[in-house]
Amino acid sequence: MNLDQNTQDTLINILRRTGQEIVMPHFRQLESQDIKEKTSRSDLVTIADQASEDFITKEIQRCFPDWAIVGEEAVAADPSTTDKINQADTCVIIDPIDGTWNFAHGLSDFGIILAVVVKGVTRFGVLYDPVNDDWVYANKGQGAYYQATTQAERGHYAAPEKAPVALHIQADTPLEQHAGIMSIHSYIGDRKQDFAIKATRFARINNLPSCPAYRQMALGHFHFSLTYKMMPWDHAAGVLIFTETGGVCRLLSGEEYRPSMLDGEMLAAQSEQQWQELAEWFRAN
Amino acid sequence: MNLDQNTQDTLINILRRTGQEIVMPHFRQLESQDIKEKTSRSDLVTIADQASEDFITKEIQRCFPDWAIVGEEAVAADPSTTDKINQADTCVIIDPIDGTWNFAHGLSDFGIILAVVVKGVTRFGVLYDPVNDDWVYANKGQGAYYQATTQAERGHYAAPEKAPVALHIQADTPLEQHAGIMSIHSYIGDRKQDFAIKATRFARINNLPSCPAYRQMALGHFHFSLTYKMMPWDHAAGVLIFTETGGVCRLLSGEEYRPSMLDGEMLAAQSEQQWQELAEWFRAN
Repeated sequence: MNLDQNTQDTLINILRRTGQEIVMPHFRQLESQDIKEKTSRSDLVTIADQASEDFITKEIQRCFPDWAIVGEEAVAADPSTTDKINQADTCVIIDPIDGTWNFAHGLSDFGIILAVVVKGVTRFGVLYDPVNDDWVYANKGQGAYYQATTQAERGHYAAPEKAPVALHIQADTPLEQHAGIMSIHSYIGDRKQDFAIKATRFARINNLPSCPAYRQMALGHFHFSLTYKMMPWDHAAGVLIFTETGGVCRLLSGEEYRPSMLDGEMLAAQSEQQWQELAEWFRAN
Repeated sequence: MNLDQNTQDTLINILRRTGQEIVMPHFRQLESQDIKEKTSRSDLVTIADQASEDFITKEIQRCFPDWAIVGEEAVAADPSTTDKINQADTCVIIDPIDGTWNFAHGLSDFGIILAVVVKGVTRFGVLYDPVNDDWVYANKGQGAYYQATTQAERGHYAAPEKAPVALHIQADTPLEQHAGIMSIHSYIGDRKQDFAIKATRFARINNLPSCPAYRQMALGHFHFSLTYKMMPWDHAAGVLIFTETGGVCRLLSGEEYRPSMLDGEMLAAQSEQQWQELAEWFRAN
């Protein structure tokens, strides 16, 4: 079942407080000792990632003591944590800072992601932008919405004045005019050159993390995304949200997405037809 | 001669007021009729660009009645406006919204740029970020600085509490580990594929407009940028600022930069040696 309004409001307010009180005070204020490499020079973690996950985890445990929690930093400490996604009745998946490289380097394109998975199926997702204090969210089967706040409302946790805007994408843009989202540098070896050349077909390619990527697609500003890395906190919320706007999300292999997946490449497109055309283009040798 | 402190403060406060009072109320609030194509589908202008330039122009005329003004939108209406850069004793060059595509599509990477050119030489430059209300600036020969504001200070135009941070870049990163800034899609024909392949040499390539690009380089977060488009409002302030941090800015052809230039490709690198290595890489067939 979907979440009631009160539960949704509680979760969104946890993200807003985390963003405004925990994350933003560190933005463009990090010292070099606040940033650490995880698996590589481009895979970073900051003191704000840990503080954000700690705060969200504590608040969810307080408000929803029966829920399991899978957070990116908890999984880094213990990979078996991801098993909870399938095992728990209700599991909340958290990316405490999605786009840590951007956050650590002062670029505003990062976010906080939360998904609620019930018996293995994503029922609710939020893509929160701490820099602008606005968010995109969806309940399964009930559409996706954008909630803006005014400058005066930022950092205040009452309901924003304006009503949420229902999101529906139009899927009539020819491939050559597409604005796409790809991180060419995450590919390795010959595939990197192959994908760089393939990317030149489109009108624009930006390199964006999952939270801004799925937001931009749900808002109709970008037409597709192709992601090399597959982690539950990167995709569970975004796949639900973009699907609710009319988009199609599926692994490039053709396999259907499940929140517990740890491997694969995700291709998101505005329609089934565009998904097929893009998949053919990216699979071709 | 450089500008006195009072003149600098006046100019920065004009940009802050423009950003907070004129530009930000439109951000993520534009209707489709607020956005128009100029020369192409990717060259946009919004009601906020015009309002921003009008406001800055009026304030500069009020405070500095003897200065000439060259703004992007005024030049779009009358190209001969750029002649003032060389003809006037003091000319202020304005980009009312740098990165209009991002602004119009709700991406936070855009800015307001102002440069003061005295007898054809850039003496002062500011790269202002309206989303975060902070800025990078330089006076010729006196170093470049980053000025942050706290959340509480945003939208208030008194001097920020913290002192400006002096910026100096380190130029010891090997090319293969560089984070670079390039807009591959702005190239055409065979050059597009050629540059896409060349870009795969580096650890990361982002597509950023001039204002965030020069800011990111002055802060040491990106190592080089290569820009296909050459307009005075895109480069005059950034070239001064990045040069003051220790960087090297020059046309890929080897020609020295002048604020009145309308053509060419700009390559910015962290040192003379890196500039030479990058130029060789990008020029090679």
